[in-house]
Amino acid sequence: MSGLKLNNGLKVIIDYQPVGKRVQTDIGQTVLAAAHGIELFEHNINAPCGGKGLCLRCLIRLIDGQLSLPSAVEIQNLTKEQLDQNYRLACQARVFSSSKVEIPASSLVGRQQLKIDGCVSHFETDYPYKQYVINGLRKPDLDYPYSLWQQVDSLLAGKYGVTDLTAGIDVLRHVKLTENEGHAVVAVYGNEIVDISPPAVAYRPLGLAIDLGTTKIAIFLVELDTGVVLASAGMLNPQIAYGEDLMSRLAFALDTEDNARRMAVLAADGINQLVKRLTFEQGRQVTEISQAVIVANSAMHHLLLGLPLNHLALSPYVPVTMAPITVTAQTIGLHLQSEAKVYMMGLVGGFVGSDHVAMIQASGIDEAQTMVLGIDIGTNTEIAVAGRDGRVSSCSCASGPAFEGAHIYQGMRAVDGAISQVNLINCGMKAEYQTIGGYKPIGLCGSGIIDLIAELNKNGIISVNGRLDLAHPRVRNGPGMVPEFLIAAQAESGCDTDIVITQNDIVEIQLAKAAIAAGIKRLMAISGITVQDVDKVIIAGAFGSFLKIQSAIAIGMLPELPLERFVQVGNAAGVGACMNLVSMRERQRNEALAKKIAHIELAVSPEFKRDFAKALKFPKLGQGTDSTYISANPVL
Amino acid sequence: MSGLKLNNGLKVIIDYQPVGKRVQTDIGQTVLAAAHGIELFEHNINAPCGGKGLCLRCLIRLIDGQLSLPSAVEIQNLTKEQLDQNYRLACQARVFSSSKVEIPASSLVGRQQLKIDGCVSHFETDYPYKQYVINGLRKPDLDYPYSLWQQVDSLLAGKYGVTDLTAGIDVLRHVKLTENEGHAVVAVYGNEIVDISPPAVAYRPLGLAIDLGTTKIAIFLVELDTGVVLASAGMLNPQIAYGEDLMSRLAFALDTEDNARRMAVLAADGINQLVKRLTFEQGRQVTEISQAVIVANSAMHHLLLGLPLNHLALSPYVPVTMAPITVTAQTIGLHLQSEAKVYMMGLVGGFVGSDHVAMIQASGIDEAQTMVLGIDIGTNTEIAVAGRDGRVSSCSCASGPAFEGAHIYQGMRAVDGAISQVNLINCGMKAEYQTIGGYKPIGLCGSGIIDLIAELNKNGIISVNGRLDLAHPRVRNGPGMVPEFLIAAQAESGCDTDIVITQNDIVEIQLAKAAIAAGIKRLMAISGITVQDVDKVIIAGAFGSFLKIQSAIAIGMLPELPLERFVQVGNAAGVGACMNLVSMRERQRNEALAKKIAHIELAVSPEFKRDFAKALKFPKLGQGTDSTYISANPVL
Repeated sequence: MSGLKLNNGLKVIIDYQPVGKRVQTDIGQTVLAAAHGIELFEHNINAPCGGKGLCLRCLIRLIDGQLSLPSAVEIQNLTKEQLDQNYRLACQARVFSSSKVEIPASSLVGRQQLKIDGCVSHFETDYPYKQYVINGLRKPDLDYPYSLWQQVDSLLAGKYGVTDLTAGIDVLRHVKLTENEGHAVVAVYGNEIVDISPPAVAYRPLGLAIDLGTTKIAIFLVELDTGVVLASAGMLNPQIAYGEDLMSRLAFALDTEDNARRMAVLAADGINQLVKRLTFEQGRQVTEISQAVIVANSAMHHLLLGLPLNHLALSPYVPVTMAPITVTAQTIGLHLQSEAKVYMMGLVGGFVGSDHVAMIQASGIDEAQTMVLGIDIGTNTEIAVAGRDGRVSSCSCASGPAFEGAHIYQGMRAVDGAISQVNLINCGMKAEYQTIGGYKPIGLCGSGIIDLIAELNKNGIISVNGRLDLAHPRVRNGPGMVPEFLIAAQAESGCDTDIVITQNDIVEIQLAKAAIAAGIKRLMAISGITVQDVDKVIIAGAFGSFLKIQSAIAIGMLPELPLERFVQVGNAAGVGACMNLVSMRERQRNEALAKKIAHIELAVSPEFKRDFAKALKFPKLGQGTDSTYISANPVL
Repeated sequence: MSGLKLNNGLKVIIDYQPVGKRVQTDIGQTVLAAAHGIELFEHNINAPCGGKGLCLRCLIRLIDGQLSLPSAVEIQNLTKEQLDQNYRLACQARVFSSSKVEIPASSLVGRQQLKIDGCVSHFETDYPYKQYVINGLRKPDLDYPYSLWQQVDSLLAGKYGVTDLTAGIDVLRHVKLTENEGHAVVAVYGNEIVDISPPAVAYRPLGLAIDLGTTKIAIFLVELDTGVVLASAGMLNPQIAYGEDLMSRLAFALDTEDNARRMAVLAADGINQLVKRLTFEQGRQVTEISQAVIVANSAMHHLLLGLPLNHLALSPYVPVTMAPITVTAQTIGLHLQSEAKVYMMGLVGGFVGSDHVAMIQASGIDEAQTMVLGIDIGTNTEIAVAGRDGRVSSCSCASGPAFEGAHIYQGMRAVDGAISQVNLINCGMKAEYQTIGGYKPIGLCGSGIIDLIAELNKNGIISVNGRLDLAHPRVRNGPGMVPEFLIAAQAESGCDTDIVITQNDIVEIQLAKAAIAAGIKRLMAISGITVQDVDKVIIAGAFGSFLKIQSAIAIGMLPELPLERFVQVGNAAGVGACMNLVSMRERQRNEALAKKIAHIELAVSPEFKRDFAKALKFPKLGQGTDSTYISANPVL
């Protein structure tokens, strides 16, 4: 149908239910395309494939009106029952008359509940920033032929004794003074004038902290002089279209220079979008942002900077440089002030990047003077062990995006309607659960999946190897004869299907939790400590703050320690980025820290592979957690 | 004809005579368009209007073959005689068969003989640049997992004790080492590594000096460590399409933000073109250029930087700032290294810009300890008076582009075939002349025009007011009854027409020379000195070095002083830009100099207007030069 031009200028109305939004569109437009640009309760129709008929996520139902006949894609992929009930794919179905359609909750993309904490860590800004009020500015004329700059210079010298200042092109281009104002506030950073504004304009210097993750980008708009986080926002890293994990993105970028450039552009454009939105919401301009700090793992760092990837992409995964680099925003495609400085924080080595250093810095692991384990859970999980002497060793392991809901049959991110906690009662005959926002369940997010697997394990519904017990009444064979466990039947779900966890989902989680468990084990072994030595475990990362620690211990992902030793700190890397944005002292501390951390490369270690294989198993019933941790061997 | 598509894939040959270049083109192509891309003896068909049929400069003659019928533009603008002789406009005539056409010399644009001297001034480079040879670089592997950066860092520290270096993104992006080379040369500037190359690649740090003039752009490719000028090139400032003088360009740019942006883009693109060509010719990359210095008058400076123009464009013409500004190349649209620094030298005030300061610096006027007059002749002419105490006063006056051949009926730039010297003998009955390159004359360049007017004056052929004596046998009424003096008849010319100077041409020169003469007079008066006090006169500027001083004195443009007091130094501003590029010491000297120069704004002075009116006249026969200089009044 796509080549067909049905539109003769005729307009129709689509009424989207249950959100109750109506939109006028051209006859022949797809239901998906017509929904673009309107916000369906801050949600939109899910279409990760971009409307190409590939992901089958944009299921809708026609309530009233006339749509095009089902396309080949729909006939192949929807059941006869679904078609009979007027279920369609929004990307395929075209409107032929004014229509009412229903969007099941499972087809809605929620605005993501990115877990981003403010700058909660205790530190002081030391941004060398001052403001001076001057008056007596005049419009130049024959008797007073002095440039704005000469006037400001001499007024500052006369009133404050401040001399030898410079002004960059950004402030000169954007001077906001009108002709007749004699008063102005001159903002000075170091020995550079960064703003000249009328007193009525309450100028505050603006900075940007960026946590550029493999899966997510989080940004923080920060007042540089006070350290106040004005606002924050997050989005999926748009590079995800070219691979979910960093290895596949590196491989893609290595292929051609164009690919590499595309990776850089995608990340920069994502950041630009977020910055544009945040500054707009705050009534500010992107051109007010003069400083930025970026934390990222080594792959995201190299891709954004356009650095050579030939050593990073191959074992032993060595970056070109680990030193901090300051670049002009334009050089990496960011739209801030023309001369805005972007401080790319230093890396540790391998894929252990500046996000990890920022996490350690923000959570104070290195200064704790106790034995601390720091775990930043993400698509790549970084783990640090800090000794009582302040020595820190870190490693990175590929845990994959399963905790974000990816590769999970009914997985979803932690948004409204996601099951986030599960409790099985009566030997698993009944499942109690909580959803985010209290909505009817439409899928499972990472914490819910781990909860559920812990419960399945506790109730003996999965074996040590993770196999679902087909004898259990709630276990059945699903599509393709893949075993699945029923969590919530269609009747109680919010999306017209049963909510299940499949055998494949369990395997995904096994792979992820084994990588983390084996990583922790190897790092502790190499550092010569045992689980019992650990005084404190810091769990960082957006996912980590939703996680139920007991469950993660129960499935053998985290070491078995008293719960009070665990602290969930949210996006500590983002907080660290903010700290380095507003404090030069913290930046020095960060640089020293990055150099100090010993990097352990696990990917090439045979012991890691052995531990990983062992950690795939689940703990035996009644035996506490997996022997991985119990028997942690302090000898290398 | 332009809408007609005659090309059916058929190709024809155009044979351009007398240059003897043949080109294959599509049937239906214009004679002008077909000539693009081929170099006709380093010349090309003149088409300043861009082939729109407006300028009528692209006259050619069909020798053999078939062209389209004359267009309306041709019929309206060519004489019947011309059409009968198969003269056509190259932008209008389309080829219908293989053809031979003649391009008269007057329709050729020569490669401009920009007068650019090398860095002749005596000074030393002090570019803080060092090279270190290291060996032992290894491809990282499991046993040696060290980044390139770590290896370089530790090898430099170990062998040379050099530590605490940084590396910018440009060097990291473009590391030229192959995997197996153990040797490298590390180039360090200050404390920054600027290059890491195999020893076989003889790296030399590259810089760019730019003289951004109202009419011309000159660039110099310079080795930063040695100060050697590798190559230079010049072009017309492409902004010229929007006005020949800076006032009309400022007015255009003030109109809309788009206009202002276009001015900036045009200048930057012009520079980029030149840089691309020069680096290509030198076998270098534009991305090797890490430093640039730009000198410009205040208008060119503000337009390129995109600074507010509201005060500069209106009396009393005050820049936003006169301080030096360093910007990243990208910020002003220059394609050099991503993080290349461009140093925009400081201005003096009004339109007296950094080009003037650079001229004074390069010619050493301020340090001469004599009374020196410095005159940089251009579309805007800047004049400096330096006293024996080193005090300098400067002014600027709008002398217009007549010396460049613009606004002159048969005016042309100083390229092959231009009459550059004239001597009238036998009371002006016969004209002896020299042309550039010794070719047959096709027009007059600035020095030729001044020579000629001096001779006309000496022989009484023009009056004190500049009026041509119609009684003289070589004076006649030309087109539109405008009187003209015949220099060379068609028979001896290189372009099928007589070469003449018209009454209007003489008026243009009167305006230009009067501006300069009155400027010199006012500046001297305000500085309290008389002509007799002047020990030395520096004549700078490309045009100034072709100028015959006697003639300029004879027409009352320059003060009457012994010829040995005049020194013609060529593009001293360009030389000054080079000096500031390679020497931080010179940069400091320049900054101090720019602050020290007293700016005199002439445009608003009633005395200037009075002197200007007086200086329009030519000296009376037998009375030496005009009383303007003779009676220079030291009292303000």
